[in-house]
Amino acid sequence: MSDLSARPVEGSVTTPKGFRAAGVACGIKASGLDLALIVSEATASAAGVFTINRAQAAPVTVSRRNLSATSGRARAIVVNSGCANACTGAEGMRHAEAMAARTASSLGCSVPEVLVASTGVIGVNLDMEKVTRGIAAAAAALAPCGGKDAARAIMTTDPFPKTAAVEVTSGSGTFRVGGIAKGSGMIEPNMATMLAFATTDAAVEPTLLQRALKAVVNDTFNAITVDGECSTNDCVFALANGASGVKLGDQDYSVLVDALRYVCEPLAVGIVRGGEGATKLVTVRVTGAASDAEARQAARAIANSPLVKTAIHGGDPNWGRLVAVAGRSGSNFVLDSAAVRIGPIELFSAGTPHDERAPEAAEYLKGTDLVVAVDMGTGGSGTSQMWTCDLSAEYVRINAEYRT
Amino acid sequence: MSDLSARPVEGSVTTPKGFRAAGVACGIKASGLDLALIVSEATASAAGVFTINRAQAAPVTVSRRNLSATSGRARAIVVNSGCANACTGAEGMRHAEAMAARTASSLGCSVPEVLVASTGVIGVNLDMEKVTRGIAAAAAALAPCGGKDAARAIMTTDPFPKTAAVEVTSGSGTFRVGGIAKGSGMIEPNMATMLAFATTDAAVEPTLLQRALKAVVNDTFNAITVDGECSTNDCVFALANGASGVKLGDQDYSVLVDALRYVCEPLAVGIVRGGEGATKLVTVRVTGAASDAEARQAARAIANSPLVKTAIHGGDPNWGRLVAVAGRSGSNFVLDSAAVRIGPIELFSAGTPHDERAPEAAEYLKGTDLVVAVDMGTGGSGTSQMWTCDLSAEYVRINAEYRT
Repeated sequence: MSDLSARPVEGSVTTPKGFRAAGVACGIKASGLDLALIVSEATASAAGVFTINRAQAAPVTVSRRNLSATSGRARAIVVNSGCANACTGAEGMRHAEAMAARTASSLGCSVPEVLVASTGVIGVNLDMEKVTRGIAAAAAALAPCGGKDAARAIMTTDPFPKTAAVEVTSGSGTFRVGGIAKGSGMIEPNMATMLAFATTDAAVEPTLLQRALKAVVNDTFNAITVDGECSTNDCVFALANGASGVKLGDQDYSVLVDALRYVCEPLAVGIVRGGEGATKLVTVRVTGAASDAEARQAARAIANSPLVKTAIHGGDPNWGRLVAVAGRSGSNFVLDSAAVRIGPIELFSAGTPHDERAPEAAEYLKGTDLVVAVDMGTGGSGTSQMWTCDLSAEYVRINAEYRT
Repeated sequence: MSDLSARPVEGSVTTPKGFRAAGVACGIKASGLDLALIVSEATASAAGVFTINRAQAAPVTVSRRNLSATSGRARAIVVNSGCANACTGAEGMRHAEAMAARTASSLGCSVPEVLVASTGVIGVNLDMEKVTRGIAAAAAALAPCGGKDAARAIMTTDPFPKTAAVEVTSGSGTFRVGGIAKGSGMIEPNMATMLAFATTDAAVEPTLLQRALKAVVNDTFNAITVDGECSTNDCVFALANGASGVKLGDQDYSVLVDALRYVCEPLAVGIVRGGEGATKLVTVRVTGAASDAEARQAARAIANSPLVKTAIHGGDPNWGRLVAVAGRSGSNFVLDSAAVRIGPIELFSAGTPHDERAPEAAEYLKGTDLVVAVDMGTGGSGTSQMWTCDLSAEYVRINAEYRT
C-alpha cells in the first residue's frame, strides 16, 4: 500500500473534476434508461481492459481499435444497454463505428476519441435510429451530476446501480477517482456482461494508466465471479483528464493503483452482491499455497463450485466440500496440514474435523456477508482473495425461464 | 473400432464367468443395502483409475497401494456406501486397511488382493463393527447372480442402479464384460462420488488391462459431468479372470478397448441421466477444433456452463450462450466460421443467426435426450464428445438443504 489518505465520498464518474455524464431512455429496452454518455471536458488519457472471450462483440473490437489509434486518449464513453451488439457480423461493426461517429460529431471531437460499449441480448442488431436519437439526447443532457443517471442507464436487470467515488490526498496533492459498473442480473439478455468505467481528475500518462488499470482489474473485477461465465462484451475503461492539477508519474504508480482500487473494489463487490439470484456475498480467502497463482486457481475453483455455493445458500457449514474443491483445483494441496475456516470458526485442521463447532458455523452462515478461508497446507506463502455469491434456485429460474 | 461383434445382455459384474457378488445391509446407511462384494473365483488381472483430487480418501490410497503391491492382481473388490472414509486421518487409513484384511480372511486370499472403495459423507469415521458384520454377511451371500444387489449396495441416493453387460465375439473367441456404477444423486453425503467396477472373463495381462481401462475411462467416465466436481473417492476398477478361456494379448488391444467401452459408456451415461436434479441428458459434440484436446476443453466448458445448463433446463434454444462459452473456453474459436446446432437445427453459422428456426429448436428441447453441437470454426479436425445434464432448481435444493 502507498502512503495516501482516501476519503470515500458519495459519487460516481462525475465526482472527479472536468467530467460530465448523462443517462437517457431511447427505447432499446422496453422501459428505463438505456443509453449513457460519459464525457471529459478535455481530452483524457484512456486505458481499457477487455474480455478474453474469443467471441468478441463489435463494440469491444471498435473500442480496442480506437484506443490503439489514439495511443490511449479519449474524450467520451458511449454505452447502451438492452442489446449487446454481439454475433452481429459486419453490420454490427458498422453500428458500433456509427455509435462512435455520432457521439464524436455531437461533442466535436475525433471519432477514435470515443470508446463504445454495449450490453444486452446477443445476436440482435442495434436499432440505430433509436441509438442516434439517444446520443443526441444524452449529449444535450450532459451534466456535472449526471454520473448517477449514467450508472442507471448501463443496467440491464441489475437489482441496483453501482457507483463509487473517493477523494485521495497523496504527496502530489488532492485528486478524485470515481466509477460506475454494471453486473449480472439480467433476465432478458443471453449473457451476463460486466462493464465498469472509472474516471479521475489526476493527470496520468496513458501507459501508466493502462498498467495501473490492468493491475487493479486483476485484483477486483477479475477476482469476482457469479457463475464462472465470461461475456462477449466485458470491458473496463479508465479516463484521466488532469483537471485537478495533480500529476501522477511513474514514481506515483502505487498511489494510482491504490486510488483506482478504492473505487474498483466496491464496484466489483457490488456486482457480486447484485449477482443473479444472489442472497449472500462470500469472500473466499486462500492462504498457504505454493504461489499466488496457485492460490488464485484454488480460490477460483472454490468461488465457482456449485457444491460450495449451494451449501452456503443453504447455510450448511460443509467444510468437506471446501476440502474436496481445494483438492481438485489443480493447485498443490496437503491434506494433513490444510485447514478450513468458515468465518472465524476453524472446522478442519491438521487432518482433523472439528464438527462440534458446526452449530456455531451454521449460525454464522445465517449472515449475508461471509468469509470462507482455506489454508492449502503446502507451507508456501501464496495467497489470493476472490468474491462470489451463493447459488440459489432463483439463479436457475432467472436463467431457465427468461424467454418462456 | 476393432473387428468384433458385441451383443448387449441384461447383466452386470457377474455376467462374465467366474465372478460372484453380493450386496447386503449392515447399517452404515439408515436403510437399504450399503456393502458390496465382488469376487473372482481365481486371481484376476486388475487395473484401476483413481481420482486426481489431492484430497484422496483412505480407500483410494489403500487400493492404489494394493494394486501396486500385487503388480495388478486382485481377487475381490469391497465397497461401502454411506460413509466416504475421507478426511479421516490415520484412523481412516486403519479402517480402509481393515476392510481389505477382513475381506481377505473371509475369502482366504492375501490382503493386497482386495481393492477397497467407499462413498458417502466426508469427515466421518467408518463404524468398523458394522463393516465387519457386513463383510461376513456379504461373503456368505456371494452368488453368480449377485451383481444386481452389488449395484444397489453402492448407491447413495442415485435414483436407479446402473448395470451393463455385453457378450463379445472376436477373432480370439467369445467372452463377456460386465459392470456396475454409482453416480451423483446423493442427498446426505457431502460430495458426489463416482465409482465403477468392470469385470471380464477374458484373460488379459495387468499392464494391457490398465492401458485399455485408462483409454476407455478417458472417453467415458472422464467425459461426463453433472456439476464439474471431482470427488475425493472416485475410482474405476477392472478385473479380468480368464474364465472364458479367451486370451487377449497386445494385438487384441482395440478389441479389449471396444469391449470395455460397450460397458463403460452406458454406465457413464447412466450416471449423468441420474445426476442430481437432472431432467435431461445432453450430449455435447464439438467439431472443427484445432486439436482433440482443444475440442475436449471446449466441450468441458460447455458441459459445465451454468448458463447453458439452465437454458436447456428451460427449453430455451439459446445459441448465444453456446457461442459465448465456446469463445471463453480457452480453445481457438473463429466466430465468423463457427456454427451451433441444437439437435438437427442449425441456429448460427458463418457469423449469422438463424432465429427463424428457434421455435423448431424449442420444440426439440422438450425431449429428454438432447444433442448440442458446436463447430469451433478453426477448420481443424479436432473433435470431442461429452455428456452432461441440465441444471435445475432441484439440484440447488438437494445440495442446499440436505442437512437442514
